[in-house]
Amino acid sequence: MQFYLDKFRPGDPELLNVNPDPALRADTDALPAEVDVLIVGCGPAGLTLAAQLSRFPGIKTRIVEQKPGPLEIGQADGIACRSMEMFQAFNMRERVEREAYWVNETAFWKPSAERPGEIVRSGLIQDVEDGLAPYPHVIINQARVHQFFLDIMARSPNRLVPNYSRRFAGLEIGADAATARIERLDEAHKGEIETVRARYIVGADGARSAVREALGFKLVGDYANQAWGVMDVLAVTDFPDIRKKCLIQSQREGNVLIIPREGGYMLRIYVEMDRLAENERVTNRAITLDDIVGAAQRILRPYKFEAKSVGWWSVYEVGQRITDYFDDAAPSGDRDPKVFIMGDACHTHSAKAGQGLNVSVQDAFNLGWKLGLVLRGLAPSSLLATYSAERRAIAQNLIDFDREWSSMMAAPLKSAEAPHGVDPADLQTYFVQHGRYTAGVVTRYARSALTGGAEHQALAKGFEVGTRFHSAPVVRLADAKALELIETLEADGRFRLIAFADRANPAAADSKIRALCEFLAQSSQSPLRRHTPAGADVDAVIDLRVVFQQGHRELKLETMPDLLWPPKGPLGLRDYEKMFCPHFKSGDVFDLRGVDRERGALVVVRPDQYVGLAAPLDDYAALAAYFAEILNAAG
Amino acid sequence: MQFYLDKFRPGDPELLNVNPDPALRADTDALPAEVDVLIVGCGPAGLTLAAQLSRFPGIKTRIVEQKPGPLEIGQADGIACRSMEMFQAFNMRERVEREAYWVNETAFWKPSAERPGEIVRSGLIQDVEDGLAPYPHVIINQARVHQFFLDIMARSPNRLVPNYSRRFAGLEIGADAATARIERLDEAHKGEIETVRARYIVGADGARSAVREALGFKLVGDYANQAWGVMDVLAVTDFPDIRKKCLIQSQREGNVLIIPREGGYMLRIYVEMDRLAENERVTNRAITLDDIVGAAQRILRPYKFEAKSVGWWSVYEVGQRITDYFDDAAPSGDRDPKVFIMGDACHTHSAKAGQGLNVSVQDAFNLGWKLGLVLRGLAPSSLLATYSAERRAIAQNLIDFDREWSSMMAAPLKSAEAPHGVDPADLQTYFVQHGRYTAGVVTRYARSALTGGAEHQALAKGFEVGTRFHSAPVVRLADAKALELIETLEADGRFRLIAFADRANPAAADSKIRALCEFLAQSSQSPLRRHTPAGADVDAVIDLRVVFQQGHRELKLETMPDLLWPPKGPLGLRDYEKMFCPHFKSGDVFDLRGVDRERGALVVVRPDQYVGLAAPLDDYAALAAYFAEILNAAG
Repeated sequence: MQFYLDKFRPGDPELLNVNPDPALRADTDALPAEVDVLIVGCGPAGLTLAAQLSRFPGIKTRIVEQKPGPLEIGQADGIACRSMEMFQAFNMRERVEREAYWVNETAFWKPSAERPGEIVRSGLIQDVEDGLAPYPHVIINQARVHQFFLDIMARSPNRLVPNYSRRFAGLEIGADAATARIERLDEAHKGEIETVRARYIVGADGARSAVREALGFKLVGDYANQAWGVMDVLAVTDFPDIRKKCLIQSQREGNVLIIPREGGYMLRIYVEMDRLAENERVTNRAITLDDIVGAAQRILRPYKFEAKSVGWWSVYEVGQRITDYFDDAAPSGDRDPKVFIMGDACHTHSAKAGQGLNVSVQDAFNLGWKLGLVLRGLAPSSLLATYSAERRAIAQNLIDFDREWSSMMAAPLKSAEAPHGVDPADLQTYFVQHGRYTAGVVTRYARSALTGGAEHQALAKGFEVGTRFHSAPVVRLADAKALELIETLEADGRFRLIAFADRANPAAADSKIRALCEFLAQSSQSPLRRHTPAGADVDAVIDLRVVFQQGHRELKLETMPDLLWPPKGPLGLRDYEKMFCPHFKSGDVFDLRGVDRERGALVVVRPDQYVGLAAPLDDYAALAAYFAEILNAAG
Repeated sequence: MQFYLDKFRPGDPELLNVNPDPALRADTDALPAEVDVLIVGCGPAGLTLAAQLSRFPGIKTRIVEQKPGPLEIGQADGIACRSMEMFQAFNMRERVEREAYWVNETAFWKPSAERPGEIVRSGLIQDVEDGLAPYPHVIINQARVHQFFLDIMARSPNRLVPNYSRRFAGLEIGADAATARIERLDEAHKGEIETVRARYIVGADGARSAVREALGFKLVGDYANQAWGVMDVLAVTDFPDIRKKCLIQSQREGNVLIIPREGGYMLRIYVEMDRLAENERVTNRAITLDDIVGAAQRILRPYKFEAKSVGWWSVYEVGQRITDYFDDAAPSGDRDPKVFIMGDACHTHSAKAGQGLNVSVQDAFNLGWKLGLVLRGLAPSSLLATYSAERRAIAQNLIDFDREWSSMMAAPLKSAEAPHGVDPADLQTYFVQHGRYTAGVVTRYARSALTGGAEHQALAKGFEVGTRFHSAPVVRLADAKALELIETLEADGRFRLIAFADRANPAAADSKIRALCEFLAQSSQSPLRRHTPAGADVDAVIDLRVVFQQGHRELKLETMPDLLWPPKGPLGLRDYEKMFCPHFKSGDVFDLRGVDRERGALVVVRPDQYVGLAAPLDDYAALAAYFAEILNAAG
């Protein structure tokens, strides 16, 4: 976290200076007639997008929500490692880590061979493999995640606060903007209609999305005809793995998934209930809380399980559904999009793999920086079509995975009577095999203007183009602080150009880093010169960072090119946070990520932390071409 | 952090349920006529004590401050590792870590041999030795630390908020209580006197303490007749170590101490200024900001140093002063104390070793739990005399250390002309030798009722009686979470009884842990039974934790004595956070701390994280005697 670039200021450094332009203030009770972005829905996707856009004080963003206030009890509580990386970008990762339950191990239980009516532990595995990500897999009340986003928004320059009790009541798409009709539901203004003309409208309004409906898109898919019960419960039990994530298969009573919850006492338990008839909906069955508790008790035998207090419970059926298009222009493809949908509005699936919130926030993280660039005039609006292209494919993967996983979770135990059932060992194997998927780190965007090819992947094997930047530990040169490289990848809408140095000492004449800096600082082909607006800091659009091979005590800061400790801000203060060295105690990043020590590597990281390009350190043309295709030439 | 023991509750889990008794609410504008504790002064010591007492909803605490509102710009900004451990106890350590500058390395600079008018780097050392403490040495605006304490107080059951614009105007000490006169300074009530009768009054009102004066105590000591300038500055410089802590000795221009500050740009710089005449005070010299900047520029040659924006600056002289007594009863010793003083009210010294805030908060942490026990009826009021006894000795150490260190810092460079000067290498050696002292971890309380002898120290060499509990990594048995043992030592006023197990499997009949649990649960001599009030949770006063030698996958939770996963709270929920195993990947705690593997060890940790006793696992008599001397028998 950097602050005080212009001057010291008392108080919370994350409470940013308020925007001097009152027209951009975003905490008024009435909605303005015109905005840049109108977001519909305060779920995880809507709030992620709002928090992202709140980083850009020149963009007029508002977010509306049908409910009268913030969510209090969440249903999506699993936070994958990948989402923690994104939370780090928003500077809220520590808050989540501190409150959350950490999923460290997953236990598998099956019927005892001797007493098949009783369960025994069949396996125990580390939940996330070592080194997969810098942050843990955790569980936390979704409402807390919402609150952390709300805090960021409220402290942003425009003080963005949601307008609650607002129902989306239709839209019209014009040539330059879309216009939404919003109905007020609050007592004092009930029934009043606000008309908001927006350059972009984003529907993050859930599985029953009114925005999606207005676009004429449908969630298509099917149900698995299986009812599940779920509850957040304070229970007394002698089941020994109650504070571990558990997948439990009983002989005849169905399956259970246990997710311990934050605070040390509460747990969430998913219980397999009735098989539904073809085309039957779960609402037809009057399943009660007692039914769920009773089923859990039968499955957990010989262990006792007494529900003492239930914070929330529900009954639902599993289905996988997806829309064909994520924006209004996708069906025709003949213009740039103006209306987008995200999250559950686009894809719904089971809760079993804990993916719901995680995929939704990544939808928003993908769209956010693109809207930011376009609305700030840094990129053409054609960039926005890549959102649907990239995220539709990811959602389809999710639907396919979830169909398979939730059918395994609901399958009977494999036996003579149920030859197509699932063996506990197979369930465990599948779980382990898909650990990287559920951690959220296998997302790979296909080749496009945003995502280069694999021609030079050999230079940086561990930073795979199209996948999220896989962090590694480093030491900052100027102050010897050990940190994770991902800490440099903030959600500020900037591209990062991470240069992994060649062997040469950067003070030497043959240093490729020195030559790169010269190109970037001086060439008319330099993407920094080409795409950074006049008067802005040199790193305002593309943020150069360098990782050297030498230890941090071997290098001399004062011999470095200016571009690596550039003067910034109104006072021309040096930024000392651009240069890094390996953290040998934790592992050398060059070894950990397979970076070519002779040639080094250039790695471009998109504002959403995905690798956009890997290139030779001296392939200036490739670098320039990458950015030229995405960004406008600065005026 | 544990929560939801009675039921799930939406919202911030650290916003505790409000006390149903309105008489205990502590956020009213007027002071009540009677309180349990009245704290005078909202500095680090006062706020630490207030935050500690706010953990006990039955104790009526108020805190007054002469200034009209919270501190905005702090002067004490160095946070020693030991203070970070204490901040962990208050659950605010992560907030500090996230915002602060981390002191990783310290650089030493001296005059160049070739060009004595220019400085060169003479040494570079790691600031804190590996393994000394689990948390870093950091720098953060003191006002932010205040804010974190204020947040804790405001979210406590009594919603403790300071009463600002209140001047302490005298006190009277009676037989059962002390009575303070408080003058209001706020416009609407100017000059009004509030009379507050308090069981205890605590003066945390700084070097010019009015409470100390009312007790008739004086700060005794002397000045070093050396003026220093200090500023928080945004500067442009080519000095390469500007983001490291630096001790710089110039040939003739004096010395400089550089402390980089949070946010990446700001730094604090202490600059040696004029030598004062005997008995001359610094106010006699009209030293200006320009003088300070000019001196810094001369000392830093050949490097350029341009001050762009100064957030705060001051000129001061170094002195070391201390009072003889820290409570009203100490001079006579014939009754129990009613009025205490803490922090700068008791001891003042230079800022150079960064000890001011750190020693003051430890004063408060030492007193807080004692007041808590006495006011809750769990301990006799004679316990309170130990505060002055323990902390007076620590303050004297500090004064002695600071006198030596600040005279070295202000000494001329050793040379033919200045044979009694200080050689840069000696300065560096002294700094390294005293690294543990400045980290705050060598405090050792003398033997007393609270601090046992060293008879059994060999059983747990690394947990030295009288010193702070030296944390080590462990894995929690129930959920396989890796954590530091110190995370169990919350600032909740409880003693911890940490039992390091013998080799036996705890399920075996010969397990000493099993026998210990039986004693603690059932014997009439058990300190748990003797000192825990009827109806309270079994760990309400003494919190038993066990560290086993086996890996966490080798042990069976369900075979453990009930006392190690005890039912708690109104629902009788099990507490799963009592049992730990070594974290072999980070180092086995038994090896790291030299715990006897054959015999195991009992380690009692006081509520302020200091080791009170080390004893054999089966020395029940020693254990019972330790607590019997401190705590009342429960009614």
